This record gives sequence, structure tokens and C-alpha cells, in this order.
Amino acid sequence: MGIVSEREARLALGCVVEPGTPQVAEAVAEFGAEAVWESLLARGSQTVLARRAREFRAGPVAEAAAAAGARFVVPGDAEWPAGLGALDGCEPVNEMSGAPLGLWVRGGGDLAGLAARSVAIVGSRACTSYGETVATELAAELGEAGWSVVSGGAFGIDAAAHRGCLASRTPTVVVLAGGVDTAYPPAHAPLFERIAEQGVVVSELAPGQHPTRLRFLGRNRLIAALSQGTLLVEAAVRSGARNTVTWASSLGRVVMAVPGPVTSALSFTPHRLIRESEAVLVARAGEVLELLGPLGTRSVRPPVVRRPTDDLGPDELRVFEAVPARGSLSAGELSLRSGVALAGCLGILDRLADLGFVVQDARWEWRLPPRPRPPAG
Amino acid sequence: MGIVSEREARLALGCVVEPGTPQVAEAVAEFGAEAVWESLLARGSQTVLARRAREFRAGPVAEAAAAAGARFVVPGDAEWPAGLGALDGCEPVNEMSGAPLGLWVRGGGDLAGLAARSVAIVGSRACTSYGETVATELAAELGEAGWSVVSGGAFGIDAAAHRGCLASRTPTVVVLAGGVDTAYPPAHAPLFERIAEQGVVVSELAPGQHPTRLRFLGRNRLIAALSQGTLLVEAAVRSGARNTVTWASSLGRVVMAVPGPVTSALSFTPHRLIRESEAVLVARAGEVLELLGPLGTRSVRPPVVRRPTDDLGPDELRVFEAVPARGSLSAGELSLRSGVALAGCLGILDRLADLGFVVQDARWEWRLPPRPRPPAG
Repeated sequence: MGIVSEREARLALGCVVEPGTPQVAEAVAEFGAEAVWESLLARGSQTVLARRAREFRAGPVAEAAAAAGARFVVPGDAEWPAGLGALDGCEPVNEMSGAPLGLWVRGGGDLAGLAARSVAIVGSRACTSYGETVATELAAELGEAGWSVVSGGAFGIDAAAHRGCLASRTPTVVVLAGGVDTAYPPAHAPLFERIAEQGVVVSELAPGQHPTRLRFLGRNRLIAALSQGTLLVEAAVRSGARNTVTWASSLGRVVMAVPGPVTSALSFTPHRLIRESEAVLVARAGEVLELLGPLGTRSVRPPVVRRPTDDLGPDELRVFEAVPARGSLSAGELSLRSGVALAGCLGILDRLADLGFVVQDARWEWRLPPRPRPPAG
Repeated sequence: MGIVSEREARLALGCVVEPGTPQVAEAVAEFGAEAVWESLLARGSQTVLARRAREFRAGPVAEAAAAAGARFVVPGDAEWPAGLGALDGCEPVNEMSGAPLGLWVRGGGDLAGLAARSVAIVGSRACTSYGETVATELAAELGEAGWSVVSGGAFGIDAAAHRGCLASRTPTVVVLAGGVDTAYPPAHAPLFERIAEQGVVVSELAPGQHPTRLRFLGRNRLIAALSQGTLLVEAAVRSGARNTVTWASSLGRVVMAVPGPVTSALSFTPHRLIRESEAVLVARAGEVLELLGPLGTRSVRPPVVRRPTDDLGPDELRVFEAVPARGSLSAGELSLRSGVALAGCLGILDRLADLGFVVQDARWEWRLPPRPRPPAG
């Protein structure tokens, strides 16, 4: 087949070599896709790769793409996500590396725009209802803040994250390990249709291709590279999601993990990553945004819990805290126990009585009001 | 009252000044307790402190101590815990600091011996059943490893930790904010009796004294100082247990926290401490021991999960992972997808077939066996 452009060469190469083959990515980066493709055809060898290259026909792929409504995006295109460049030259994971030759994209969203402000949320397929709830809610809150969710469309955490994002009316990005017209798992075909309406369905593989284990691993590197950071919600000791986290680390992206009950096997990997400082603990969408957003534009504040004593000055608080849980004490004793001089202590006790914190008894001693507050333990 | 020894002077001073008064601790460290006590009596002033010192009588305290079966332990005694020394000169918390003048101890255990190999487990009084379960189980596992639990005997996490330790037949240490004969909360009197049988009930305050808010804060510094590290199990945004953690940090002890569901308000403070690197995440007793035990004597290993593919070599695994989830491929195609040279690939496919990982179909192509394994996601 005669190749007339770099774009067509990338498309053709992507159809005959497996995703994440480092040698191909390196050769393309050095010589260009056209040259690599021509050399493959010129060899005349009987290797499977050469034979596949010779047998490649662009027509059927173009037809399948047209039927699926898929476009092919390559470096230099406006829709090419800037984050993918980091895949060239990063530490390989599972002997894979390299930016994709091109991406098949289906849907109404702009991939580059969505990816530029996105968080990958990944986790176990066999998640708990806790994990599902947390993934959905975090994704919805991130969506409300204008951040897209990138995930793999699998059962469990992936689907919950996509659905949470959709619920906030924010486009989401699903990256598949097969063609963008080939729903895997098949049960998620309707979900992928919904995603394509406003967001995008993305794959390195041409329409019609099916996922394999290696393709899942290659797909994981795209999830990590497309997003600004990867958030792990639930994962047992061994998990495919752990692979995405390794990619995010290798790419220097922010790695986050949601803790859970220590009694849950599905919190093992998040806890281990946090404990070993490979991931930052996040419990709320605000904490994710604090890590990913422009410096200083957001800050995480703990929920404010007001106590009646919050309005007391430091000396007033010390005197109040010296009042025993049961029984009463003289002002002199309270002065001693609180370390506040007696003169000041007398005025403070009167103010505390006005505010209802203490009462004076018949012997002029001070005690807590009839319904005592429990002492701080 | 005439004081005849440093021990009696410490006992008397401890009866008239509040725990954790830094000026007193400093004066005692510099001049000795006898000199401080004598100067207090000599002043002849009308301050509450001077009057209390003049009015102090050792007899009733000795009687109460005898009735309670309590001994008074001071620095230099074999039972004086070495860890308390760090309280002199450490960063003050809540304007308190200083080692205790002495400790009232009740029970059959040896305080110094127990404290030398102990973990403080603290947390919310209004804990969840999750927190209670985790505190009990961690304490029991630590107890089985020969480590005592130090805590404050409060409702919730404290009591769960003491009970877990007792369940492992290991003595536990409860540090009270009132006298060792004055159970607080009163409902825990039977628990404290059980603790006293093999372990110890400890307080800075003389028998008969009642807790106050400030005394709880002073007590927390003892929990942190007696133990090798402090483990926080559950605590809401504001919590007394947070104060113990601050003491442990200030003393340079190991601070640990147990994560929980992010949907639980009681996991807020543990998560925040972990997120801000003030505490190390621990999910298992082995992880606590790894942090506290002698270096290198213990290591944390993740639970081992075996998969059928664990015995495959790297090339075998790559070939196996190249086999599609559905459909079949030729050996040449699998060689290409796996990156394993065709000659090697043929032998590997035969071995994989022998092991039941793949089957060959009528067209000599390779596929997964009839009951396919789901691809890794």
C-alpha cells in the first residue's frame, strides 16, 4: 500500500504493531512514521510483521472508522493531548513504553481540552459498595469543579467514576483496550454511548480490534498519561489498577489513593501506597484539586465544628477547664489550678457565670451548671 | 509539715500543684523537690499555693494510698519509666510540660518494664463499631507479640484497646486524670480492677483526686511519654486524642494512625495526620511493630495471593497475555503481539497448552480454553 502522509503511515503502523512497542516508538520518533513504514515494506522479509504490513489495506479500516464515527488524531493535531509526550523516554513499565502512534477518538468532546483538566480514577472491578460510592461522589464533585474523569470503562470503580462525572454534566474520557467501536465489557456499550455524546471514547487500536491482556496494560499507560494525576479508589493486593498507578509514578504525575477500612482487602493497595509515600491520601474532591490545581488557587479547609467555648479568651478557657467535672472549688483554688492570677480569675468567673458556663453555690464555690458537660478525654 | 526526703517532698508538691506546671518542674529539676517545698513553706505568703502547702498533711494521703494499695514512684526508683525524662525540655503543649513529680501506681505489673515495650492506643470516646473492632484487634495482636497497650481508660477506643490487650493475656497500663482509687468514668471501675491484677493503674494525682479538663490534658502527656509510640484509631475534627498525638510528636515518638472510610467523620483526624505526614498509616499490628521494634527484626510482608500464571516465565507470560480474550490467533501473530521470537513462541505455546492455559483450534490457531479467564483490567 502506498503511503502519502505521516498521518497515514502512523495509522497503518498502528494497525500492524502492538501498542507500547518501544522499538517502534523510538524509530518513529527518530525517523518519522513514513520512513519506518516504507522500510517495513521494503524489507521483503517473511516475518509476520512484514507480511502484515504488505497485507495491510487502509480501505477497510477507513470504512470501519466511518461506520463508528471515529477520527484518527496524531501529534500536531489540535486535539492531540499534550500529556502524551511524556511517554517518550519515561521509565518503561511491563517492557512497554512510548507515546501512541495515533489515537482513535469517537464522541462530541475535545480530547485535548478534556485531558488538560482531568483526573484518572481507577480501581478494582470487584469493588465494594463503599468504593463505588466514593468513586461516584469524588467524580461528581470533580466534575462540578470542571474537571473531567479519565478511566478505563471497566466494571466497578471505572464505571462508577465515569457515571459520577456524567452525573455532574461534565464530559468524561474512556480509554479502551480494543477498538472504539468494540465495547468491552459488552454490557457497558450503553455507557460508552452516553460518554460519546459529550465526552470521548479513545483507543490506540483501530476499530474492530479486541482487547488482550497486553493491550490492557498498554491502555493503562494512556490513562495515566492523558490525566494530570491518578487516583486509586480500591485495589486488592494484585490489581490491574496498580499498573496504572505505576505508570503515573513513572510519568511523574500526581498519585493519590483513597483510604478505607483496614478490614477490607480492597483497601490493601491504597493503604500500602500511602504508607510507602507512593500516593498521597485523599478523602475529598477538594484535596484532589489542591494537589492538581494551579498553586494557591485552592486550599483544603477542614469542616468547621463550633463549640461553645470557642469564643472564650485563653485565660477564660483555662479557668473554665480548671472547674472540676464534679464538685466545686473556690476561686483561689481555681486560680491555682488554672495558673490565672486571683484578681483576673474573679472577673473571669463572673463572666463565665454570665455566659452560663459555671454557677456559684451556697458556699461561694464554683461548679459546672446542673447539666454538666463531659470533660474532654 | 517537716519533709525528710526528696521522695516525700515530691509527694507533697504533687498534692498542692497542678500536673504539668512547667515552673514547678523546672525548679525541681534545678534545686530538687526538698528545696522547692521548703521555700514554699518559708515564704509565709498568703497565696493559695503557700496556704495549701502549709495546710498539707501527709497522713491522710498515706492512708488513702494504703487503702487503695497504691505506691508512689519517683525518679531513681527501679519502677520509674525511662521515657518520662523526655518531658523535661520538650516543646510544651497547652502551656504544660515537665516530667511528673512522681507517679501513683496501683497493680501487680512493673510500670517501667511494661512501658519500655508499649504502644499508646488512643481515639474517640464516641467511636464506631469499626474503630472499636480495629482497636481491640490491634491491641490483642500487639499483646500477643509481647507489647503492652497504654491508654486512658475512657469509653470507646481506650477501653477497646485495654480489653484487646487483656484478651491476649498481656498486662496493660491505664493512665488516669484523677486518683488511682477514683475510677473515671465510674462505669469502668471493674475494667480498672482487671487491669490492676496484672497491669498497672497510674496517675500523677494523689488518691482521692478528681479529674478536670486540664488534668485530662496533663494526663495525655503521660500516655505519650510512657509509650514508644502513639497510635490514633478514630478521632473527629476535634478530639482529646489529638492532644495525645501532639504530645507524641513533640516528644519525638512514633505517631501512627489507622485509616477508615472517608465517609466517616471519625476518620477525619487520622486521615488528616496521614495526609500531612504527621502520622504513618498503619493497618496491621505487624506494621506497628515494624515501626517500633528493633530495626530489622521484623518486616511487613503483604499477604501472598497466588495466581495460576505465577509459575510462568516472563516470555511465557507475555505470549499468554497476547492471546485475545475472544477469538484465536496464529502463532506468528502471537509472536508479533508478544514480542517473543517465533521459534521460542512455538515451544511456549505447546507448554502453555500442556498447562491448560491455551488450546489450539482446528485452524491451528491459539485461543483461551472454553471457560475463558477474564482479561486483566
